[in-house]
Amino acid sequence: MFTRQELIDYTRDAKEKWLNHISVDCVVFGFHEGQLKVLLLKMKDEQSWYLPGGFVLKDEHLDDSASRILNERTGLDQIFLQQFHVFGDPQRSRPHYEMYKDVADNENNWFSNRFITIGYYALVDFHNTVPAPDSLSEKCVWCGLDALPGFILDHKQILDNALYALRLQLNYQPIGYNLMPHEFTMPELQKLYETILDKKLDRRNFQRKILAFDILNRSEHPRKGGAHKAPYLYSFNLEKYQQALKEGLAAGW
Amino acid sequence: MFTRQELIDYTRDAKEKWLNHISVDCVVFGFHEGQLKVLLLKMKDEQSWYLPGGFVLKDEHLDDSASRILNERTGLDQIFLQQFHVFGDPQRSRPHYEMYKDVADNENNWFSNRFITIGYYALVDFHNTVPAPDSLSEKCVWCGLDALPGFILDHKQILDNALYALRLQLNYQPIGYNLMPHEFTMPELQKLYETILDKKLDRRNFQRKILAFDILNRSEHPRKGGAHKAPYLYSFNLEKYQQALKEGLAAGW
Repeated sequence: MFTRQELIDYTRDAKEKWLNHISVDCVVFGFHEGQLKVLLLKMKDEQSWYLPGGFVLKDEHLDDSASRILNERTGLDQIFLQQFHVFGDPQRSRPHYEMYKDVADNENNWFSNRFITIGYYALVDFHNTVPAPDSLSEKCVWCGLDALPGFILDHKQILDNALYALRLQLNYQPIGYNLMPHEFTMPELQKLYETILDKKLDRRNFQRKILAFDILNRSEHPRKGGAHKAPYLYSFNLEKYQQALKEGLAAGW
Repeated sequence: MFTRQELIDYTRDAKEKWLNHISVDCVVFGFHEGQLKVLLLKMKDEQSWYLPGGFVLKDEHLDDSASRILNERTGLDQIFLQQFHVFGDPQRSRPHYEMYKDVADNENNWFSNRFITIGYYALVDFHNTVPAPDSLSEKCVWCGLDALPGFILDHKQILDNALYALRLQLNYQPIGYNLMPHEFTMPELQKLYETILDKKLDRRNFQRKILAFDILNRSEHPRKGGAHKAPYLYSFNLEKYQQALKEGLAAGW
Protein backbone atom coordinates (compact mmCIF):
# COMPACT_ATOMS: atom_id res chain seq x y z
CA MET A 1 0.00 0.00 0.00
CA PHE A 2 1.06 3.56 -0.67
CA THR A 3 1.78 5.94 2.21
CA ARG A 4 -0.01 9.30 2.17
CA GLN A 5 2.96 11.08 0.60
CA GLU A 6 3.52 8.33 -1.97
CA LEU A 7 -0.13 8.48 -3.00
CA ILE A 8 0.00 12.28 -3.36
CA ASP A 9 3.14 12.02 -5.50
CA TYR A 10 1.65 9.16 -7.54
CA THR A 11 -1.53 11.17 -8.20
CA ARG A 12 0.38 14.29 -9.26
CA ASP A 13 2.52 12.32 -11.72
CA ALA A 14 -0.46 10.29 -12.93
CA LYS A 15 -2.48 13.37 -13.88
CA GLU A 16 0.39 14.59 -16.03
CA LYS A 17 1.14 11.27 -17.60
CA TRP A 18 -1.97 9.16 -18.13
CA LEU A 19 -5.50 9.39 -19.51
CA ASN A 20 -8.02 9.59 -16.72
CA HIS A 21 -10.83 7.03 -16.38
CA ILE A 22 -9.13 4.37 -18.50
CA SER A 23 -7.08 1.36 -17.44
CA VAL A 24 -5.90 -1.88 -19.01
CA ASP A 25 -5.76 -5.33 -17.40
CA CYS A 26 -3.97 -8.33 -18.89
CA VAL A 27 -4.87 -12.00 -18.49
CA VAL A 28 -1.88 -14.12 -19.51
CA PHE A 29 -2.43 -17.86 -19.84
CA GLY A 30 0.30 -20.48 -19.97
CA PHE A 31 0.08 -24.27 -20.23
CA HIS A 32 2.30 -26.43 -18.06
CA GLU A 33 2.13 -30.13 -17.15
CA GLY A 34 -1.44 -30.43 -18.35
CA GLN A 35 -2.56 -27.39 -16.38
CA LEU A 36 -3.75 -23.99 -17.55
CA LYS A 37 -2.09 -21.27 -15.49
CA VAL A 38 -2.55 -17.52 -15.23
CA LEU A 39 -0.03 -14.82 -14.35
CA LEU A 40 -0.80 -12.89 -11.14
CA LEU A 41 0.75 -10.10 -9.09
CA LYS A 42 0.72 -9.51 -5.37
CA MET A 43 1.27 -5.89 -4.30
CA LYS A 44 3.61 -5.13 -1.42
CA ASP A 45 1.78 -4.83 1.93
CA GLU A 46 -1.51 -6.07 0.49
CA GLN A 47 -3.28 -9.39 0.86
CA SER A 48 -5.18 -9.44 -2.43
CA TRP A 49 -3.88 -10.41 -5.85
CA TYR A 50 -4.05 -8.46 -9.11
CA LEU A 51 -3.97 -9.10 -12.80
CA PRO A 52 -1.07 -7.18 -14.36
CA GLY A 53 -2.66 -3.83 -15.19
CA GLY A 54 -1.99 -0.13 -15.54
CA PHE A 55 -2.85 3.11 -17.29
CA VAL A 56 -2.66 4.55 -20.81
CA LEU A 57 -0.13 7.28 -21.66
CA LYS A 58 -1.71 10.47 -23.00
CA ASP A 59 -0.40 9.95 -26.50
CA GLU A 60 -0.08 6.17 -26.70
CA HIS A 61 -2.10 3.73 -28.81
CA LEU A 62 -4.31 1.65 -26.54
CA ASP A 63 -2.93 -1.64 -27.88
CA ASP A 64 0.64 -0.43 -27.34
CA SER A 65 -0.20 0.46 -23.76
CA ALA A 66 -1.30 -3.12 -23.08
CA SER A 67 2.09 -4.47 -24.26
CA ARG A 68 4.02 -1.82 -22.33
CA ILE A 69 2.03 -2.38 -19.11
CA LEU A 70 2.50 -6.14 -19.27
CA ASN A 71 6.22 -5.67 -19.86
CA GLU A 72 6.67 -3.13 -17.03
CA ARG A 73 4.74 -5.18 -14.49
CA THR A 74 5.90 -8.71 -15.29
CA GLY A 75 9.02 -8.42 -17.46
CA LEU A 76 7.28 -10.29 -20.30
CA ASP A 77 8.13 -8.98 -23.76
CA GLN A 78 6.86 -9.54 -27.32
CA ILE A 79 3.52 -10.93 -26.16
CA PHE A 80 0.61 -10.98 -28.62
CA LEU A 81 -2.31 -9.53 -26.64
CA GLN A 82 -5.92 -9.49 -27.80
CA GLN A 83 -8.73 -7.28 -26.52
CA PHE A 84 -11.65 -9.33 -25.24
CA HIS A 85 -14.00 -7.13 -23.18
CA VAL A 86 -14.42 -3.69 -21.59
CA PHE A 87 -15.53 -3.60 -17.96
CA GLY A 88 -17.61 -0.46 -17.41
CA ASP A 89 -19.49 -0.82 -14.13
CA PRO A 90 -19.27 2.61 -12.41
CA GLN A 91 -18.68 0.86 -9.06
CA ARG A 92 -15.96 -1.53 -10.25
CA SER A 93 -12.98 0.50 -9.01
CA ARG A 94 -14.75 1.59 -5.81
CA PRO A 95 -12.82 -0.86 -3.55
CA HIS A 96 -9.56 0.76 -4.68
CA TYR A 97 -10.94 4.14 -3.67
CA GLU A 98 -12.13 2.82 -0.30
CA MET A 99 -8.68 1.39 0.37
CA TYR A 100 -7.10 4.84 0.08
CA LYS A 101 -9.86 7.21 1.16
CA ASP A 102 -8.37 7.80 4.63
CA VAL A 103 -4.86 8.17 3.22
CA ALA A 104 -5.54 11.16 0.95
CA ASP A 105 -8.47 13.33 -0.14
CA ASN A 106 -10.15 13.05 -3.55
CA GLU A 107 -7.92 15.70 -5.06
CA ASN A 108 -4.75 13.83 -4.09
CA ASN A 109 -6.01 10.31 -4.72
CA TRP A 110 -5.81 9.01 -8.30
CA PHE A 111 -7.84 5.99 -7.23
CA SER A 112 -10.82 8.17 -6.30
CA ASN A 113 -11.56 8.38 -10.04
CA ARG A 114 -13.85 5.96 -11.81
CA PHE A 115 -11.91 3.63 -14.15
CA ILE A 116 -13.23 1.72 -17.12
CA THR A 117 -10.83 -1.13 -17.80
CA ILE A 118 -10.07 -2.76 -21.12
CA GLY A 119 -9.30 -6.46 -20.84
CA TYR A 120 -6.56 -8.03 -22.97
CA TYR A 121 -5.54 -11.67 -22.99
CA ALA A 122 -2.64 -13.70 -24.28
CA LEU A 123 -1.51 -17.30 -24.60
CA VAL A 124 2.20 -17.71 -23.96
CA ASP A 125 4.87 -20.36 -23.98
CA PHE A 126 5.20 -21.24 -20.32
CA HIS A 127 8.76 -22.49 -20.67
CA ASN A 128 10.19 -19.43 -22.37
CA THR A 129 8.39 -16.99 -20.11
CA VAL A 130 10.02 -16.06 -16.84
CA PRO A 131 7.97 -13.45 -14.98
CA ALA A 132 9.58 -10.81 -12.76
CA PRO A 133 7.66 -8.50 -10.39
CA ASP A 134 7.88 -4.70 -10.77
CA SER A 135 8.91 -2.41 -7.90
CA LEU A 136 5.33 -2.12 -6.56
CA SER A 137 4.86 -5.88 -6.39
CA GLU A 138 6.03 -8.47 -3.92
CA LYS A 139 5.37 -11.41 -6.23
CA CYS A 140 4.64 -12.18 -9.86
CA VAL A 141 3.80 -15.85 -10.30
CA TRP A 142 1.96 -18.45 -12.37
CA CYS A 143 -1.12 -19.76 -10.64
CA GLY A 144 -3.19 -22.85 -11.55
CA LEU A 145 -6.87 -22.14 -12.26
CA ASP A 146 -7.84 -24.68 -9.60
CA ALA A 147 -5.95 -22.83 -6.85
CA LEU A 148 -6.76 -19.15 -7.36
CA PRO A 149 -6.21 -16.69 -4.48
CA GLY A 150 -8.49 -13.77 -3.48
CA PHE A 151 -8.57 -10.96 -6.04
CA ILE A 152 -8.87 -7.19 -5.74
CA LEU A 153 -11.69 -5.28 -7.53
CA ASP A 154 -13.43 -7.29 -10.27
CA HIS A 155 -10.26 -9.11 -11.32
CA LYS A 156 -11.80 -12.54 -10.80
CA GLN A 157 -14.62 -11.56 -13.16
CA ILE A 158 -12.09 -10.29 -15.72
CA LEU A 159 -10.25 -13.62 -15.53
CA ASP A 160 -13.52 -15.60 -15.94
CA ASN A 161 -14.44 -13.47 -18.91
CA ALA A 162 -11.04 -14.02 -20.54
CA LEU A 163 -11.48 -17.76 -20.12
CA TYR A 164 -14.91 -17.54 -21.76
CA ALA A 165 -13.41 -15.58 -24.69
CA LEU A 166 -10.63 -18.18 -25.01
CA ARG A 167 -13.16 -21.03 -25.14
CA LEU A 168 -15.17 -19.26 -27.84
CA GLN A 169 -11.98 -18.58 -29.77
CA LEU A 170 -11.25 -22.34 -29.92
CA ASN A 171 -14.24 -22.64 -32.25
CA TYR A 172 -13.22 -20.14 -34.88
CA GLN A 173 -9.47 -19.57 -34.58
CA PRO A 174 -6.48 -21.86 -34.16
CA ILE A 175 -4.97 -22.05 -30.67
CA GLY A 176 -1.86 -23.68 -29.35
CA TYR A 177 1.10 -22.39 -31.33
CA ASN A 178 2.41 -20.50 -28.30
CA LEU A 179 1.34 -23.14 -25.80
CA MET A 180 2.74 -26.38 -27.21
CA PRO A 181 6.31 -27.56 -27.79
CA HIS A 182 7.40 -27.57 -31.45
CA GLU A 183 6.40 -31.21 -31.93
CA PHE A 184 3.62 -32.95 -30.05
CA THR A 185 1.37 -36.00 -30.23
CA MET A 186 -2.36 -35.90 -30.89
CA PRO A 187 -3.20 -36.84 -27.25
CA GLU A 188 -0.96 -33.98 -26.06
CA LEU A 189 -2.84 -31.46 -28.19
CA GLN A 190 -6.18 -32.95 -27.10
CA LYS A 191 -5.10 -32.44 -23.49
CA LEU A 192 -4.62 -28.71 -24.17
CA TYR A 193 -8.14 -28.40 -25.63
CA GLU A 194 -9.61 -30.42 -22.75
CA THR A 195 -7.85 -28.23 -20.21
CA ILE A 196 -9.04 -24.98 -21.73
CA LEU A 197 -12.60 -26.29 -22.15
CA ASP A 198 -12.54 -28.06 -18.78
CA LYS A 199 -14.19 -31.16 -20.25
CA LYS A 200 -13.30 -34.52 -21.78
CA LEU A 201 -13.37 -34.81 -25.57
CA ASP A 202 -13.91 -37.90 -27.67
CA ARG A 203 -10.54 -39.04 -29.06
CA ARG A 204 -11.71 -39.88 -32.58
CA ASN A 205 -13.89 -36.78 -32.99
CA PHE A 206 -11.05 -34.59 -31.77
CA GLN A 207 -8.59 -36.04 -34.28
CA ARG A 208 -11.07 -35.81 -37.18
CA LYS A 209 -11.96 -32.21 -36.39
CA ILE A 210 -8.48 -30.86 -35.74
CA LEU A 211 -7.12 -32.51 -38.90
CA ALA A 212 -10.00 -31.04 -40.92
CA PHE A 213 -8.81 -27.55 -39.92
CA ASP A 214 -5.71 -28.30 -42.01
CA ILE A 215 -3.26 -26.40 -39.79
CA LEU A 216 -0.99 -29.30 -38.70
CA ASN A 217 2.05 -30.92 -40.21
CA ARG A 218 2.66 -34.62 -39.44
CA SER A 219 6.25 -35.65 -38.97
CA GLU A 220 7.63 -38.57 -41.00
CA HIS A 221 9.26 -39.91 -37.86
CA PRO A 222 7.05 -41.19 -35.03
CA ARG A 223 8.30 -40.67 -31.45
CA LYS A 224 10.66 -43.42 -30.32
CA GLY A 225 10.73 -45.37 -27.09
CA GLY A 226 8.15 -47.28 -25.07
CA ALA A 227 6.71 -50.70 -25.66
CA HIS A 228 3.62 -49.55 -27.58
CA LYS A 229 3.24 -48.39 -31.15
CA ALA A 230 5.23 -45.17 -31.59
CA PRO A 231 2.87 -42.15 -31.81
CA TYR A 232 2.98 -39.76 -34.74
CA LEU A 233 4.37 -36.30 -34.05
CA TYR A 234 2.62 -33.16 -35.25
CA SER A 235 3.63 -29.53 -35.48
CA PHE A 236 1.69 -26.45 -36.55
CA ASN A 237 1.86 -25.41 -40.19
CA LEU A 238 2.65 -21.78 -39.46
CA GLU A 239 1.49 -20.42 -42.83
CA LYS A 240 -1.91 -22.10 -42.64
CA TYR A 241 -2.17 -21.32 -38.93
CA GLN A 242 -1.70 -17.60 -39.57
CA GLN A 243 -4.15 -17.68 -42.46
CA ALA A 244 -6.74 -19.30 -40.16
CA LEU A 245 -6.08 -16.61 -37.53
CA LYS A 246 -7.15 -14.04 -40.12
CA GLU A 247 -9.92 -15.85 -41.95
CA GLY A 248 -11.31 -18.25 -39.36
CA LEU A 249 -11.01 -22.04 -39.31
CA ALA A 250 -11.89 -24.07 -42.39
CA ALA A 251 -14.90 -25.51 -40.56
CA GLY A 252 -16.56 -22.06 -40.69
CA TRP A 253 -19.22 -21.05 -43.22
CA MET B 1 -21.40 22.38 -37.20
CA PHE B 2 -21.44 24.18 -33.89
CA THR B 3 -20.98 27.96 -33.75
CA ARG B 4 -18.30 29.30 -31.42
CA GLN B 5 -20.77 30.01 -28.61
CA GLU B 6 -22.53 26.64 -29.03
CA LEU B 7 -19.20 24.82 -28.83
CA ILE B 8 -18.23 26.74 -25.65
CA ASP B 9 -21.60 25.89 -24.06
CA TYR B 10 -21.35 22.27 -25.19
CA THR B 11 -17.85 21.93 -23.73
CA ARG B 12 -18.86 23.47 -20.38
CA ASP B 13 -21.83 21.12 -20.03
CA ALA B 14 -19.84 18.12 -21.28
CA LYS B 15 -17.13 18.55 -18.63
CA GLU B 16 -19.79 18.43 -15.91
CA LYS B 17 -21.72 15.57 -17.38
CA TRP B 18 -19.49 13.05 -19.13
CA LEU B 19 -16.32 11.05 -18.62
CA ASN B 20 -13.46 12.55 -20.58
CA HIS B 21 -11.52 10.50 -23.17
CA ILE B 22 -14.26 7.87 -23.63
CA SER B 23 -16.93 7.61 -26.30
CA VAL B 24 -19.26 4.93 -27.64
CA ASP B 25 -20.19 4.25 -31.28
CA CYS B 26 -22.99 1.95 -32.39
CA VAL B 27 -23.18 -0.10 -35.58
CA VAL B 28 -26.79 -1.19 -36.12
CA PHE B 29 -27.44 -3.74 -38.87
CA GLY B 30 -30.84 -4.49 -40.40
CA PHE B 31 -31.81 -6.92 -43.20
CA HIS B 32 -34.25 -5.79 -45.88
CA GLU B 33 -35.05 -7.26 -49.31
CA GLY B 34 -31.95 -9.42 -49.32
CA GLN B 35 -29.69 -6.51 -48.37
CA LEU B 36 -27.72 -5.83 -45.21
CA LYS B 37 -28.16 -2.21 -44.15
CA VAL B 38 -26.56 -0.02 -41.50
CA LEU B 39 -28.01 2.94 -39.61
CA LEU B 40 -26.23 6.25 -40.25
CA LEU B 41 -26.55 9.88 -39.17
CA LYS B 42 -25.79 13.06 -41.05
CA MET B 43 -25.06 16.08 -38.85
CA LYS B 44 -26.61 19.43 -39.73
CA ASP B 45 -24.31 21.62 -41.85
CA GLU B 46 -21.78 18.83 -42.38
CA GLN B 47 -21.08 16.69 -45.42
CA SER B 48 -19.77 13.57 -43.69
CA TRP B 49 -21.78 10.79 -42.11
CA TYR B 50 -21.52 9.34 -38.60
CA LEU B 51 -22.31 6.18 -36.77
CA PRO B 52 -24.71 6.94 -33.89
CA GLY B 53 -22.35 7.73 -31.04
CA GLY B 54 -21.91 9.77 -27.89
CA PHE B 55 -20.38 9.99 -24.43
CA VAL B 56 -20.64 8.16 -21.11
CA LEU B 57 -22.33 9.82 -18.11
CA LYS B 58 -20.08 10.13 -15.05
CA ASP B 59 -22.00 7.53 -13.06
CA GLU B 60 -23.45 5.34 -15.81
CA HIS B 61 -22.59 1.73 -16.65
CA LEU B 62 -20.81 1.62 -19.99
CA ASP B 63 -23.29 -0.86 -21.48
CA ASP B 64 -26.22 1.33 -20.37
CA SER B 65 -24.63 4.32 -22.04
CA ALA B 66 -24.57 2.48 -25.38
CA SER B 67 -28.35 1.84 -25.19
CA ARG B 68 -29.07 5.41 -24.07
CA ILE B 69 -26.90 6.94 -26.80
CA LEU B 70 -28.50 4.83 -29.52
CA ASN B 71 -31.94 5.78 -28.23
CA GLU B 72 -31.18 9.50 -28.00
CA ARG B 73 -29.61 9.71 -31.43
CA THR B 74 -31.89 7.44 -33.46
CA GLY B 75 -35.08 6.90 -31.43
CA LEU B 76 -34.40 3.13 -31.34
CA ASP B 77 -35.33 1.47 -28.06
CA GLN B 78 -34.82 -1.95 -26.46
CA ILE B 79 -31.91 -2.86 -28.73
CA PHE B 80 -29.55 -5.65 -27.67
CA LEU B 81 -26.07 -4.18 -28.20
CA GLN B 82 -22.82 -6.15 -27.98
CA GLN B 83 -19.31 -4.77 -27.52
CA PHE B 84 -17.00 -5.81 -30.32
CA HIS B 85 -13.81 -3.69 -30.25
CA VAL B 86 -12.14 -0.67 -28.68
CA PHE B 87 -10.55 1.85 -31.03
CA GLY B 88 -7.58 3.42 -29.29
CA ASP B 89 -5.43 5.18 -31.88
CA PRO B 90 -4.33 8.49 -30.29
CA GLN B 91 -4.92 10.25 -33.65
CA ARG B 92 -8.38 8.81 -34.32
CA SER B 93 -10.40 11.83 -33.12
CA ARG B 94 -7.92 14.35 -34.51
CA PRO B 95 -10.12 15.30 -37.53
CA HIS B 96 -12.88 16.31 -35.10
CA TYR B 97 -10.41 18.58 -33.34
CA GLU B 98 -9.19 20.05 -36.63
CA MET B 99 -12.78 20.82 -37.62
CA TYR B 100 -13.26 23.02 -34.57
CA LYS B 101 -9.77 24.34 -33.84
CA ASP B 102 -10.50 27.80 -35.31
CA VAL B 103 -13.90 27.99 -33.64
CA ALA B 104 -12.72 27.74 -30.02
CA ASP B 105 -9.46 27.25 -28.11
CA ASN B 106 -8.46 23.98 -26.45
CA GLU B 107 -9.99 24.96 -23.13
CA ASN B 108 -13.38 25.61 -24.72
CA ASN B 109 -13.36 22.77 -27.21
CA TRP B 110 -14.48 19.33 -25.95
CA PHE B 111 -13.32 17.84 -29.24
CA SER B 112 -9.72 18.87 -28.59
CA ASN B 113 -9.50 15.90 -26.21
CA ARG B 114 -8.36 12.49 -27.29
CA PHE B 115 -11.21 9.96 -27.33
CA ILE B 116 -10.98 6.20 -27.14
CA THR B 117 -14.21 4.80 -28.54
CA ILE B 118 -15.89 1.55 -27.61
CA GLY B 119 -17.71 -0.09 -30.53
CA TYR B 120 -21.07 -1.81 -29.99
CA TYR B 121 -23.11 -3.58 -32.62
CA ALA B 122 -26.66 -4.84 -32.94
CA LEU B 123 -28.85 -6.78 -35.35
CA VAL B 124 -32.38 -5.41 -35.50
CA ASP B 125 -35.70 -6.14 -37.14
CA PHE B 126 -35.74 -3.73 -40.05
CA HIS B 127 -39.53 -3.65 -40.27
CA ASN B 128 -40.20 -2.79 -36.65
CA THR B 129 -37.44 -0.22 -36.43
CA VAL B 130 -38.22 3.33 -37.53
CA PRO B 131 -35.22 5.61 -36.99
CA ALA B 132 -35.62 9.31 -36.12
CA PRO B 133 -32.77 11.86 -36.10
CA ASP B 134 -31.89 13.79 -32.91
CA SER B 135 -31.74 17.60 -32.78
CA LEU B 136 -28.08 17.72 -33.94
CA SER B 137 -28.75 15.57 -37.00
CA GLU B 138 -30.27 16.36 -40.35
CA LYS B 139 -30.89 12.72 -41.28
CA CYS B 140 -30.95 9.26 -39.68
CA VAL B 141 -31.33 6.62 -42.37
CA TRP B 142 -30.66 3.00 -43.34
CA CYS B 143 -27.90 2.65 -45.87
CA GLY B 144 -27.02 -0.41 -47.98
CA LEU B 145 -23.44 -1.68 -47.55
CA ASP B 146 -22.91 -1.36 -51.31
CA ALA B 147 -23.71 2.38 -51.32
CA LEU B 148 -21.91 3.82 -48.29
CA PRO B 149 -21.28 7.58 -48.12
CA GLY B 150 -18.11 9.34 -46.85
CA PHE B 151 -17.56 8.93 -43.11
CA ILE B 152 -16.08 11.19 -40.45
CA LEU B 153 -13.11 10.07 -38.28
CA ASP B 154 -12.50 6.29 -38.35
CA HIS B 155 -16.19 5.41 -38.63
CA LYS B 156 -15.70 3.40 -41.82
CA GLN B 157 -13.08 1.31 -40.02
CA ILE B 158 -15.46 0.82 -37.07
CA LEU B 159 -18.17 -0.38 -39.46
CA ASP B 160 -15.75 -2.78 -41.21
CA ASN B 161 -14.68 -4.13 -37.86
CA ALA B 162 -18.29 -4.68 -36.76
CA LEU B 163 -18.93 -6.62 -39.96
CA TYR B 164 -15.87 -8.77 -39.27
CA ALA B 165 -17.14 -9.47 -35.73
CA LEU B 166 -20.57 -10.35 -37.11
CA ARG B 167 -19.05 -12.81 -39.60
CA LEU B 168 -17.04 -14.49 -36.85
CA GLN B 169 -20.13 -14.64 -34.66
CA LEU B 170 -21.94 -16.66 -37.35
CA ASN B 171 -19.57 -19.52 -36.57
CA TYR B 172 -20.15 -19.78 -32.86
CA GLN B 173 -23.48 -18.12 -32.05
CA PRO B 174 -26.92 -18.20 -33.64
CA ILE B 175 -27.88 -15.18 -35.74
CA GLY B 176 -31.13 -14.13 -37.34
CA TYR B 177 -33.80 -14.05 -34.67
CA ASN B 178 -34.04 -10.26 -34.91
CA LEU B 179 -33.44 -10.15 -38.65
CA MET B 180 -35.94 -12.66 -40.05
CA PRO B 181 -39.75 -12.68 -40.06
CA HIS B 182 -41.31 -15.18 -37.63
CA GLU B 183 -41.54 -17.90 -40.27
CA PHE B 184 -39.17 -18.29 -43.20
CA THR B 185 -37.99 -20.84 -45.76
CA MET B 186 -34.53 -22.42 -45.83
CA PRO B 187 -33.48 -20.38 -48.94
CA GLU B 188 -34.56 -17.18 -47.17
CA LEU B 189 -32.34 -17.96 -44.17
CA GLN B 190 -29.50 -18.97 -46.49
CA LYS B 191 -29.84 -15.58 -48.21
CA LEU B 192 -29.26 -13.85 -44.84
CA TYR B 193 -26.08 -15.84 -44.21
CA GLU B 194 -24.87 -15.23 -47.78
CA THR B 195 -25.51 -11.51 -47.42
CA ILE B 196 -23.62 -11.20 -44.15
CA LEU B 197 -20.73 -13.31 -45.43
CA ASP B 198 -20.83 -11.72 -48.88
CA LYS B 199 -20.41 -15.10 -50.58
CA LYS B 200 -22.52 -17.92 -52.07
CA LEU B 201 -23.06 -21.00 -49.94
CA ASP B 202 -23.81 -24.53 -51.09
CA ARG B 203 -27.55 -25.22 -50.59
CA ARG B 204 -27.21 -28.75 -49.20
CA ASN B 205 -24.27 -27.99 -46.90
CA PHE B 206 -26.09 -24.94 -45.56
CA GLN B 207 -29.21 -26.94 -44.74
CA ARG B 208 -27.25 -29.79 -43.14
CA LYS B 209 -25.18 -27.42 -41.01
CA ILE B 210 -27.95 -25.12 -39.84
CA LEU B 211 -30.21 -28.06 -38.93
CA ALA B 212 -27.35 -29.64 -36.97
CA PHE B 213 -27.27 -26.54 -34.76
CA ASP B 214 -30.73 -27.64 -33.56
CA ILE B 215 -32.12 -24.14 -33.12
CA LEU B 216 -34.98 -24.25 -35.69
CA ASN B 217 -38.58 -25.41 -35.54
CA ARG B 218 -40.13 -26.73 -38.76
CA SER B 219 -43.78 -25.83 -39.30
CA GLU B 220 -46.26 -28.66 -40.05
CA HIS B 221 -47.75 -26.51 -42.81
CA PRO B 222 -45.62 -25.71 -45.88
CA ARG B 223 -46.12 -22.33 -47.53
CA LYS B 224 -49.04 -22.31 -50.01
CA GLY B 225 -49.23 -20.89 -53.53
CA GLY B 226 -47.12 -21.26 -56.65
CA ALA B 227 -46.94 -24.15 -59.09
CA HIS B 228 -43.93 -25.87 -57.47
CA LYS B 229 -43.68 -28.05 -54.43
CA ALA B 230 -44.61 -25.95 -51.39
CA PRO B 231 -41.51 -25.09 -49.29
CA TYR B 232 -41.30 -25.93 -45.59
CA LEU B 233 -41.47 -23.03 -43.17
CA TYR B 234 -39.05 -22.70 -40.28
CA SER B 235 -38.94 -20.52 -37.19
CA PHE B 236 -36.34 -20.17 -34.44
CA ASN B 237 -36.72 -22.34 -31.34
CA LEU B 238 -36.27 -19.48 -28.90
CA GLU B 239 -35.26 -21.62 -25.94
CA LYS B 240 -32.53 -23.47 -27.85
CA TYR B 241 -31.51 -20.25 -29.60
CA GLN B 242 -30.92 -18.49 -26.28
CA GLN B 243 -29.07 -21.50 -24.90
CA ALA B 244 -26.78 -21.43 -27.95
CA LEU B 245 -26.20 -17.70 -27.44
CA LYS B 246 -24.80 -18.56 -24.01
CA GLU B 247 -23.02 -21.83 -24.68
CA GLY B 248 -22.07 -21.61 -28.33
CA LEU B 249 -23.47 -23.61 -31.23
CA ALA B 250 -23.70 -27.40 -31.02
CA ALA B 251 -21.01 -27.70 -33.68
CA GLY B 252 -18.43 -26.34 -31.19
CA TRP B 253 -16.01 -28.50 -29.23
